[in-house]
Amino acid sequence: MSLDFESMAHHCGEWLRASGPESDIVISSRVRLARNLTDFPFIARATESDREQIEQILHARIEALQAAGKLPPAQPSNELHYVNVSQLPEIDRQFLMERQLISRELADAEGARAVVIDGGERFSVMINEEDHLRLQVMHSGLDLETAWREINEIDDLLEEQINYAYNDRLGYLTACPTNVGTGIRVSVMLHLPALVITRQIDKVFRSLQKINLAVRGLYGEGSQAMGDFYQISNQVTLGMPEEELLKKVADVVPVLLEYERQARDFLIRESQETLHDRVSRAFGILRTAQTISSEETLHLLSSVRMGVNLGLIGDVGIPTVNKLFVHTQPAHLQKLAGMELDQSDRNIERASYLRRHLNGGTSTTGAN
Amino acid sequence: MSLDFESMAHHCGEWLRASGPESDIVISSRVRLARNLTDFPFIARATESDREQIEQILHARIEALQAAGKLPPAQPSNELHYVNVSQLPEIDRQFLMERQLISRELADAEGARAVVIDGGERFSVMINEEDHLRLQVMHSGLDLETAWREINEIDDLLEEQINYAYNDRLGYLTACPTNVGTGIRVSVMLHLPALVITRQIDKVFRSLQKINLAVRGLYGEGSQAMGDFYQISNQVTLGMPEEELLKKVADVVPVLLEYERQARDFLIRESQETLHDRVSRAFGILRTAQTISSEETLHLLSSVRMGVNLGLIGDVGIPTVNKLFVHTQPAHLQKLAGMELDQSDRNIERASYLRRHLNGGTSTTGAN
Repeated sequence: MSLDFESMAHHCGEWLRASGPESDIVISSRVRLARNLTDFPFIARATESDREQIEQILHARIEALQAAGKLPPAQPSNELHYVNVSQLPEIDRQFLMERQLISRELADAEGARAVVIDGGERFSVMINEEDHLRLQVMHSGLDLETAWREINEIDDLLEEQINYAYNDRLGYLTACPTNVGTGIRVSVMLHLPALVITRQIDKVFRSLQKINLAVRGLYGEGSQAMGDFYQISNQVTLGMPEEELLKKVADVVPVLLEYERQARDFLIRESQETLHDRVSRAFGILRTAQTISSEETLHLLSSVRMGVNLGLIGDVGIPTVNKLFVHTQPAHLQKLAGMELDQSDRNIERASYLRRHLNGGTSTTGAN
Repeated sequence: MSLDFESMAHHCGEWLRASGPESDIVISSRVRLARNLTDFPFIARATESDREQIEQILHARIEALQAAGKLPPAQPSNELHYVNVSQLPEIDRQFLMERQLISRELADAEGARAVVIDGGERFSVMINEEDHLRLQVMHSGLDLETAWREINEIDDLLEEQINYAYNDRLGYLTACPTNVGTGIRVSVMLHLPALVITRQIDKVFRSLQKINLAVRGLYGEGSQAMGDFYQISNQVTLGMPEEELLKKVADVVPVLLEYERQARDFLIRESQETLHDRVSRAFGILRTAQTISSEETLHLLSSVRMGVNLGLIGDVGIPTVNKLFVHTQPAHLQKLAGMELDQSDRNIERASYLRRHLNGGTSTTGAN
């Protein structure tokens, strides 16, 4: 059941497959639940031995459910991989983070911890992150209902095997008070380049904050909004049933889609040449750079992605662009190159990778 | 004998043909002489009627020399065009400036003024610029001696027909004291991108100033050094024979060539990837931009030119790059497009022109 990162690296996983509904703007839909075992202290107060026991118990329970054909959900025949994160080298932890399968917190933590991932990368369970258990279901495009239905099933399955920390008045107890209650976080990852270009993004975010929705960057809490990717999620988990929290996020997405599409229309109408220039140059630089950082790559790919969606660039398809977002991240790049590379060599390899995949086999800048 | 600017626009003229010796760095060599008629006040004090008479006299003398088969020099069978600058629309004056055939001062002046140009654009005479007469011979690459020999011949020919303002003690009298004496300005236009990148250019210029050489930009006095083109010339014209002034400029050129080549070697050796990245991206942007200013174009073409000379770019030749330096200037662009364009439309047309000439017939960014 061990995971082959090298072969994983070659495909896109679920989160940037971007094949679902509204996937020109909605990259992925995600629901996660925070749960804790009633018999152990929260992670912050747990001893190393506590964490080892938690990990062993959860490992056993999950394996049993898999053996019984109940996991992974919706596709029980699919493989389920148990990954002992504490034994992974840094590059592999980074790799899983880049695929949105583990959080930076789990990657950087110490001691016993793990992640369970299904072969399709839709379903994952982090063990000993901020909470003992973090269940996640992710779907391409806009599809929060399916994600919710699937995670709910898994939660029920696990609850039959595990004593969750639960309080009749408060609901599920979690390490951080913001998760107490339902322990649910419903989120959508959106690609909003036109709202960024037209400088409306801050206004939009202030409106979202007023209705208690949080906005984060590509790699969750505290991360910059690289590549114009923004994750919108609920902030409150207490005092409302899960369906209502889900609806709150689901209801705002069509509004954001409309804003982004209006901004794109505006750009096309009012400054088509400037917009075309921006996306075309971005494409040109990606096809010719000899060394390029991951940040600049995300920034330029973001323009290209919008350009392709608007029909301004015809030489490349969205699946390729989506793939490049992931493949040009540091750990993926090294997995694909089959060797570890320092930052300077990564920048060179990244540029080379981009040229190979965007120039349709012909090199545009000759020698060296 | 009238000049067809539209057909002129299609070829490069002499100054950026860059086919002579050391033409990877030395764009052109130029010698000019300032002369005045003894019977008229200097231009600054001349009446409109004075200027008209000066223009008529010089026009007649030059036509006579041409009719006698003595002009243009070295190739008397070549055509000689007399252009009445005061009657030219602004775009045509700009056009001649872009070809280094007239100065900004002559273009912007008022009243009777003219320029005489030979078909090869090596030889030109400005009438009623700062002085009554400014003779110029320009050669591609490093060839000051030929330029000097030719202009000396022309000067002698004219002196047989014209009473020059001359003082036995001072030499030729000129409107500006800096030209008194020989009235000669010897200059070379150099392309020094590596000295700019390695930030050595200011140091080099300070050394040149110490030995009384002047450094100017692409369009002469006061103009910015666009596209990393620098014009080096003598500042003193008094108290030394012409040959010595010529030698002073000629002697410094090999030193500057050596500095620039060392800087290029250094860049290749110490930061080949960064250099390759710079020139390759410049090429990429020029091939994909949808709107681009003349300044940015010069800047990027400068990188591409160095890249081609260093073998880092293989898809384009130096003649094409040289041609693009001239063809993307505002007046040339409009001549080539066959219509007047405002700045915004010029930027779009410039980008389109660059894409057509750098993409070898295939468009790289599809729609619109």
